[in-house]
Amino acid sequence: MTQEQDRQYMELAIQMAAATTGQTSPNPHVGAVVVHQNEVLGMGAHLKAGEAHAEVHALNMAGNRARGGTIYVTLEPCSHHGRTPPCAERIIQSGIARAVIATLDPNPKVAGQGVQKLREAGIEVEVGLQQEEADQLNQVFYHYISTNTPYVTMKTAMTMDGKIATTTGESQWITGEAARADVHQYRHANDAILVGVNTVIQDKPRLTARLPDGGNHPTRIVLDTHLRTPIDSPLIQNPDAPTWILTGNQVEQDQIDVYQSYPHVEIIKLSHETIFIPDVLTLLGDRGITSLFVEGGAQVNDAFVRAGAVQQVIQYIAPKLLGGKDAPTPVGGEGIGELQAALALEITEVSSIGQDIKVVAKQKRQEG
Amino acid sequence: MTQEQDRQYMELAIQMAAATTGQTSPNPHVGAVVVHQNEVLGMGAHLKAGEAHAEVHALNMAGNRARGGTIYVTLEPCSHHGRTPPCAERIIQSGIARAVIATLDPNPKVAGQGVQKLREAGIEVEVGLQQEEADQLNQVFYHYISTNTPYVTMKTAMTMDGKIATTTGESQWITGEAARADVHQYRHANDAILVGVNTVIQDKPRLTARLPDGGNHPTRIVLDTHLRTPIDSPLIQNPDAPTWILTGNQVEQDQIDVYQSYPHVEIIKLSHETIFIPDVLTLLGDRGITSLFVEGGAQVNDAFVRAGAVQQVIQYIAPKLLGGKDAPTPVGGEGIGELQAALALEITEVSSIGQDIKVVAKQKRQEG
Repeated sequence: MTQEQDRQYMELAIQMAAATTGQTSPNPHVGAVVVHQNEVLGMGAHLKAGEAHAEVHALNMAGNRARGGTIYVTLEPCSHHGRTPPCAERIIQSGIARAVIATLDPNPKVAGQGVQKLREAGIEVEVGLQQEEADQLNQVFYHYISTNTPYVTMKTAMTMDGKIATTTGESQWITGEAARADVHQYRHANDAILVGVNTVIQDKPRLTARLPDGGNHPTRIVLDTHLRTPIDSPLIQNPDAPTWILTGNQVEQDQIDVYQSYPHVEIIKLSHETIFIPDVLTLLGDRGITSLFVEGGAQVNDAFVRAGAVQQVIQYIAPKLLGGKDAPTPVGGEGIGELQAALALEITEVSSIGQDIKVVAKQKRQEG
Repeated sequence: MTQEQDRQYMELAIQMAAATTGQTSPNPHVGAVVVHQNEVLGMGAHLKAGEAHAEVHALNMAGNRARGGTIYVTLEPCSHHGRTPPCAERIIQSGIARAVIATLDPNPKVAGQGVQKLREAGIEVEVGLQQEEADQLNQVFYHYISTNTPYVTMKTAMTMDGKIATTTGESQWITGEAARADVHQYRHANDAILVGVNTVIQDKPRLTARLPDGGNHPTRIVLDTHLRTPIDSPLIQNPDAPTWILTGNQVEQDQIDVYQSYPHVEIIKLSHETIFIPDVLTLLGDRGITSLFVEGGAQVNDAFVRAGAVQQVIQYIAPKLLGGKDAPTPVGGEGIGELQAALALEITEVSSIGQDIKVVAKQKRQEG
């Protein structure tokens, strides 16, 4: 197999894995390809938690012809018994002669064990091909398993002069249709979506993923210290997805009872009088939320920024100028006083979307 | 000549014209190429007002060999006697058989006259090749001769959440070195640079074009209603470029006398108590300023935005989040109340610059 062939097969595995965005949580995105004598014999991706892993799909497809062949996997095969038997064993049984693995298991407790098992069984193993791209696939998963809190993506939409509304509060719409439609893919891809109660009251959002061909609705989270979410909010009246309302500890039981006839709505009292972002993230992580899409408003965004709790920013910039020192901006609140303390990001993508620009930025990796 | 050859020669003429950015004001950028039997015989660009036009340079280089050849010119040759004799006549005298012209003279009073003269002399003339690109070269010139006011470019530098400083006012530096260096090419390319007196007081800028190999310093304009520009400002102390301080009509002669020992400084009283942007633009246009680079601050920017007087925005976005509803934004002041009244732009360029993003947007063309 030439290096270029190796690269192409791994690239195929990565693309299959990438196609499962939004459907594998809390599991990672993984793709696998089985090749022998320059013929693709099997391919697969992990499609849904609890179902077969990518390697199993690909090996099932290949059947006996896998013997002596090569398997390309975007993530180290598991070596432990989980909800499914260990993939490393399944690979060994298949008679595969060579395994090319893009990246090791990010869980430090098991990293390298799958590779070791394969090697002990006499399989030739190579690790690291297309690693960066493969890691990129599972940034959410990696963040979650290393912190037990969700990977936070903040969305903002603003004019070129940083306004999210005019001085009189007019905000519909700053960005064009294409940008607004694009947001729904992130709602689909994230386990949960979060807003502040002011946004619930003012904008009456549904917070569902309205893609042309459907989509997975995220769990809807409201930060609502005093439990002011109106009963007639779409989040209460529309049961398409769970709604979790997080409150301070001063909320009374009779306030909570008002919502009890809506089984998709859950009121969760946090342990302090006001809401702290680290508490929110811990709670959501414990409840299996691996990815969180924050759609503001300005004060909630500020709380996440000041907590340093933003892994990614999706920003839409509309080519308009509005001016106004009192016009609201995407991140309001108290803010950060020192420039050096700014939440530092790096830009990973800039593109046109309709008449607007889309910028993706990720939290800068800690150096050293 | 094939169409593709025509395109290539015109492209060369455009590139020569583009290379003269910042040096031909108040004249347009023009390039010309003379070709005969697939050989380039002459090329030239208009380099400086009062000197030879592009066609003359190219025809001089070609000499007698131009006879029977083709001339490519990015702008319709002039047919009137100005500071130099009309180029149309020079082309006719040269014996050129064919003229390919990218775009007509934008001055409606003379548009088409050059072409007509050439045709009357029996020269084959084609108009419109690479027109859009050629028009792009001279947007400043076109704006100026059609409005008699300068083409305004506004520069802003902000974080991803639209802040130009922290809540405590720290602003040095929001963007990286590459973005800050890039600004100087705009200072070089514009006839004048404009700031508000608050920026003069707070930032003590020099407002010169500090490019690695020098550059043309723009005339420095300060909007200063009450004439508060400090005598120790670099704009007063450093005579590298003229400084024009525009004031309201309430300023007294003894205030003005303070500046009289600085011959590069001129105090210009406008006719109203406060400063109106249209008055500023008319004054600058009358004084031959064809292009104006506005570097703010927020209140001056807002005045230009509300006056609809921004033809182009150069924006640098730093991948940082600062938050803070009181943190200053690039365009402050009163602002525009209705979203529909926003100053509408279209994005023409997005690129990376160091760790930052650079966005260029231009005022949307009026439709109909």
